[in-house]
Amino acid sequence: MDRAKRIENLRALMTEKQLDRVIIFNFENQFYFSGLRAITYSRPIIMIVERDQQSLIIPKLEEKHAREKTAADHIHVYHEVGGNDGGSTDYLTLFDEVLSGLNDGGRIGIESESLPVKLSSSIKKKNGTLVDIQKDIAQMRAIKSAEEIELIKRSGELVSGALKHTIENSKPGESELEIDYHGNQYLFDTVSEHYTDSTLDFFVMSPSGVARTNMPHIFSNTRKLEEGDVIIHSRQVGLNGYRAECERTCFIGQPTEAQEKEFKVMLEAHLAALDFIKPGVTAKAVNEAALEIIRPAGYEAYVSHRTGHGIGIGQHEEPSLRFDNDLVLEPDMVFCVEPGIYIPDVGGFRHSDTVVLTEDGADIITEYPRDLESLVMQ
Amino acid sequence: MDRAKRIENLRALMTEKQLDRVIIFNFENQFYFSGLRAITYSRPIIMIVERDQQSLIIPKLEEKHAREKTAADHIHVYHEVGGNDGGSTDYLTLFDEVLSGLNDGGRIGIESESLPVKLSSSIKKKNGTLVDIQKDIAQMRAIKSAEEIELIKRSGELVSGALKHTIENSKPGESELEIDYHGNQYLFDTVSEHYTDSTLDFFVMSPSGVARTNMPHIFSNTRKLEEGDVIIHSRQVGLNGYRAECERTCFIGQPTEAQEKEFKVMLEAHLAALDFIKPGVTAKAVNEAALEIIRPAGYEAYVSHRTGHGIGIGQHEEPSLRFDNDLVLEPDMVFCVEPGIYIPDVGGFRHSDTVVLTEDGADIITEYPRDLESLVMQ
Repeated sequence: MDRAKRIENLRALMTEKQLDRVIIFNFENQFYFSGLRAITYSRPIIMIVERDQQSLIIPKLEEKHAREKTAADHIHVYHEVGGNDGGSTDYLTLFDEVLSGLNDGGRIGIESESLPVKLSSSIKKKNGTLVDIQKDIAQMRAIKSAEEIELIKRSGELVSGALKHTIENSKPGESELEIDYHGNQYLFDTVSEHYTDSTLDFFVMSPSGVARTNMPHIFSNTRKLEEGDVIIHSRQVGLNGYRAECERTCFIGQPTEAQEKEFKVMLEAHLAALDFIKPGVTAKAVNEAALEIIRPAGYEAYVSHRTGHGIGIGQHEEPSLRFDNDLVLEPDMVFCVEPGIYIPDVGGFRHSDTVVLTEDGADIITEYPRDLESLVMQ
Repeated sequence: MDRAKRIENLRALMTEKQLDRVIIFNFENQFYFSGLRAITYSRPIIMIVERDQQSLIIPKLEEKHAREKTAADHIHVYHEVGGNDGGSTDYLTLFDEVLSGLNDGGRIGIESESLPVKLSSSIKKKNGTLVDIQKDIAQMRAIKSAEEIELIKRSGELVSGALKHTIENSKPGESELEIDYHGNQYLFDTVSEHYTDSTLDFFVMSPSGVARTNMPHIFSNTRKLEEGDVIIHSRQVGLNGYRAECERTCFIGQPTEAQEKEFKVMLEAHLAALDFIKPGVTAKAVNEAALEIIRPAGYEAYVSHRTGHGIGIGQHEEPSLRFDNDLVLEPDMVFCVEPGIYIPDVGGFRHSDTVVLTEDGADIITEYPRDLESLVMQ
């Protein structure tokens, strides 16, 4: 999957920034550049890219997996079993060894928000200069390949189906966790039936009631849905590591007048942002398109987050559809568009859809009715 | 939940190590010390503990959540909406502000494997000295309180029930993802029925077949179970953030002779380690108890990981039951005991159970039959 090309791009960056090595520690970036999507618990994995070779430092239990999935020229294995074959038992020792060929004063590309002090200290001991390439990598990831877009579109279908399954099967008396489960069931069945040799990630949350919907990001809990509840049902699905998101604000029974008004403004802002987003506009202009609806309604003070964000390998990734982002959007970027309004006594309201930017517009790849009538559960 | 006591312990450590401040960046440690278990996507959260106050740097959308859950004296909010209330839009600016009162040469406690370069650079600009307290915090977390043990025991019941549900309902033709789903269903139903105001985390993987069971940590995929398959069904459940683990190696139909032999050795090693683990023994002696079975059977070369690890807030946490860990085990530590054997042409084999160390022994809190006959699905 385009990995040779990605490494080539990274090496072009190394030339431009005069880097001797790049250390990739962030696991999303490791998947992007190496193909290894490991379950990372307590054992660090480090990828090192040089001009003419790439290597991985990995725990013994990932060795087979890494040899199967990656094109690494060298796999440096650390062990946690004594006397097994005399290899190192400490990833830091291996890291120091890999750095040992470095010229004094070498320049090392790193991800400043991911590389931990423990590793940066090792580099500094070698008098290496850290050069932050976090944003450069985020930029590379922001433009998706045809293959990536294909996977994201499949995830768009899956997440839409799962959301539909939850909204059409949920009822009062069920808990937030139980309504999540309707959609999960759809996913496990559908992915198993239609996709061979494929993995499924999902994230889902359904804060319900006025107080909980006012917290945009909380884990679903066992609170039972009651007549009169507002619910933000939010879901992401990742097929083989590539994600799409779909969210709808729903009601059990009829909303109050204040809720109807808030819903209407949120919906109008959502549609305005979806309609506005396209190549050639700035990220901040998309954010503003939503605010131009929200502001005159008097709700700007109840907006607590940006209008949206990139998505792909990451649940959230660059570019951010934020008031201060001057970036001009390009084809093959993928975004979640999700202006939210959170009014303490009324409830939190947010829809989200995923869009793929094309040469001449935007392709909305998630679908479920957005209007109030369709989102009232009885 | 014991949080004031935990902060008190942290401040005692600060006195002992002459620390002016502690920066908590790891999200498990943040939950441990603050009570805030946020969904962390793209917006960093930073906890700062001083001798006489504690504060949080958080994104606007976590403000309500943080005020509800934590005892932070100060909550520094960063915004991503322009003109909202004139606050900062950058967490690094807030971090610099929080550090501004620091005396030149102040000593800052940090987690060396979690704190990213971006934050450590800010500390160094103030001429702060980084003091690694990663291990000290891991040590604090290793001894569980009564309240933590209670939650872990409930998770032990839940994970055992989910595992039973999967093993007793799985059949050939279903995919790895589908068999995972049987147990998930049990969890969503059971937690919703029995626990109020509670969250549920779970992790599950079921590598199947000879090649995939030889990779100890991989995501379940859509591979369909076939007659003759070996399966490592592995599951963790976290009730309100505290976890337990249960794993069984199962078969579809009858195992081969080589598989029966490997299973027998794995089972004997598992039982030996479960029988051996108790307060007063060293971590490495538990590891050795399993190897004393595995070695004479000629399988030591097929052991690729330690015999077990601590569990609690983390999926894996200290102490590690590893060949080089001299730590003497204590009451109220909680471990997963899971010696594994991975033979390329035969399959990977591993059971795991969670044990709570008591004053005079160990309480196995997960349960499902371990013998071969009980683990053959037809």
